[in-house]
Amino acid sequence: MSTMKKLGERKAIEAIRQILSLPRMPIPFGDDVSGLEIGRNLVAILKTDMLVKETDVPPTMSFWQAGRKAVVMNISDFAAKGVKPIALLVALGVPADFLKKDVEQLAEGLNAGAREYDAYVIGGDTSEASDLVISCSLFGLSKRGLLMLRSGAEPGDILAVTGLFGKTAAGLKLLLENLSVSSTIGKVFLDAVLMPQARLNEGLVLSRVGAVSSSIDSSDGLAWSLHEIRRASNVGFIIDYLPVATEVLRFAKRNNVDPVELALYGGEEYELVLTIKQRMWKKALRAVKQVGGSLIRIGRVTEEAEMILHWEGRTISIEPRGWEHFKSGK
Amino acid sequence: MSTMKKLGERKAIEAIRQILSLPRMPIPFGDDVSGLEIGRNLVAILKTDMLVKETDVPPTMSFWQAGRKAVVMNISDFAAKGVKPIALLVALGVPADFLKKDVEQLAEGLNAGAREYDAYVIGGDTSEASDLVISCSLFGLSKRGLLMLRSGAEPGDILAVTGLFGKTAAGLKLLLENLSVSSTIGKVFLDAVLMPQARLNEGLVLSRVGAVSSSIDSSDGLAWSLHEIRRASNVGFIIDYLPVATEVLRFAKRNNVDPVELALYGGEEYELVLTIKQRMWKKALRAVKQVGGSLIRIGRVTEEAEMILHWEGRTISIEPRGWEHFKSGK
Repeated sequence: MSTMKKLGERKAIEAIRQILSLPRMPIPFGDDVSGLEIGRNLVAILKTDMLVKETDVPPTMSFWQAGRKAVVMNISDFAAKGVKPIALLVALGVPADFLKKDVEQLAEGLNAGAREYDAYVIGGDTSEASDLVISCSLFGLSKRGLLMLRSGAEPGDILAVTGLFGKTAAGLKLLLENLSVSSTIGKVFLDAVLMPQARLNEGLVLSRVGAVSSSIDSSDGLAWSLHEIRRASNVGFIIDYLPVATEVLRFAKRNNVDPVELALYGGEEYELVLTIKQRMWKKALRAVKQVGGSLIRIGRVTEEAEMILHWEGRTISIEPRGWEHFKSGK
Repeated sequence: MSTMKKLGERKAIEAIRQILSLPRMPIPFGDDVSGLEIGRNLVAILKTDMLVKETDVPPTMSFWQAGRKAVVMNISDFAAKGVKPIALLVALGVPADFLKKDVEQLAEGLNAGAREYDAYVIGGDTSEASDLVISCSLFGLSKRGLLMLRSGAEPGDILAVTGLFGKTAAGLKLLLENLSVSSTIGKVFLDAVLMPQARLNEGLVLSRVGAVSSSIDSSDGLAWSLHEIRRASNVGFIIDYLPVATEVLRFAKRNNVDPVELALYGGEEYELVLTIKQRMWKKALRAVKQVGGSLIRIGRVTEEAEMILHWEGRTISIEPRGWEHFKSGK
């Protein structure tokens, strides 16, 4: 019999999709968020994402940080679509022996995560569960033309990201294995794990300038995000600059870890992965800088369905794998 | 140290509310649903409710029924507010050894529950968890003036419900204890537990005719619903007709169980509890009948903050208790 462990999250979702009666939707099933037309060219945007303590909360993460992360995970998907989050509901599953002060810490973290992105927690539900489960559902509004989908990338477009990769993967390695690193770099990695940032300002401004042909966040890893855009847009990629943080390069060298693995396949990173029309590149760059962000050109979109990385003189084939519930993780 | 078990769901929610930065909202925090003004007199309505297998899924309930129930629980809250549900997202937490066919049954149940009420499951999230957790979040739109809140009941209003109580409580007793009942009545009780119905048509038509001064669903039990309306509306109630199903009366007699207990404090029932302006009673009654429902007058709203039941010549004080996570249940 096929179990979830054998099947993996992605095939399970595909099996569920086959069963659902789907209406006409402005955003295809399986994109980062769901959408519903509500008239006047407006689209109601909805997103739900569940954080489970056992698989999603690394050691040393506080309840405050777990609450905040549960919110940021959802905000990041809105960022990737260029949608301003307005409010969220939180369904909490909490063990009966949980302390009141821990629930309060969790609530402080949820509230802080929402307020950080100018959204509000406006309601929810509390249930008894065997492990801590935080299920957020986020609501926002968008104009149809402003949505940035996974589909739409075209050959010749510039491939770009909003930050450097590998810090979260290195941080998780630090927490779970016994590796050596300077305390300064250790702090950078732990911050990446414990205090993830959603690129909301970047996503919103890029949606406004209309420069983006496709977009996704990188919560399942850079390689997987590229694979998803490739699949939705029917294109390929050549990457000639690996966006890896210098701290990650140093850490990788010192501990004999492959930096390409850390940068491409880590997951739990919340940068945006975007394709941008060539003629709009400068405008996009300026817009992102104006909101204090960065936009890093890492390659280009190709017609062939390839995923290739040029790195230190080698040509590496990027595999369509990344973080996946039931398959990855503990 | 105070644990969730000692605190109970309601005090935990109150503690969380104290922490949240709440914006101005058209529906007060703690009502059955949350709302956000989105212009043109429209209110976006959001609701999340989590079903946890260990506490919310009774023995003999199939995965199909559990999926359907998770949706119906949320629809019932929309029904109580007079809001048409449009679409929902589902975040699933599933153990790794779960079978693919069980997840498919679950998805079939989710889809069936949504379609039954003319809504759609349009997206979601799948995570690994130690116990099955189904977190639904439901979206709809309402005009501000059509919303039926918990507040608004006034002395002299008629107190009414949309059906008879006690079948679910009797059914749960049947499943968990070893009680005697005829097979016909047993089936009625089990149906109430396994195939709950949300009173959506009743809620929608009552909102349209504008007869209702306050409304809530009875998912935590009739007594608790009355307590909530009392608290939100600052009124009291005298009940002179106990809305208890005849099958429940027979079952109670045969097994020496208190029928008042079954009807008032059971929970997991999805009738609407409403207060209706006297002059609008006939109109409300006609409207509900037209959609095939029933509206049962059970008492009246009083100025004093009492909750009194007249039953078989006795005057019984209704206690503000009902089903509560962490306190009730297994």
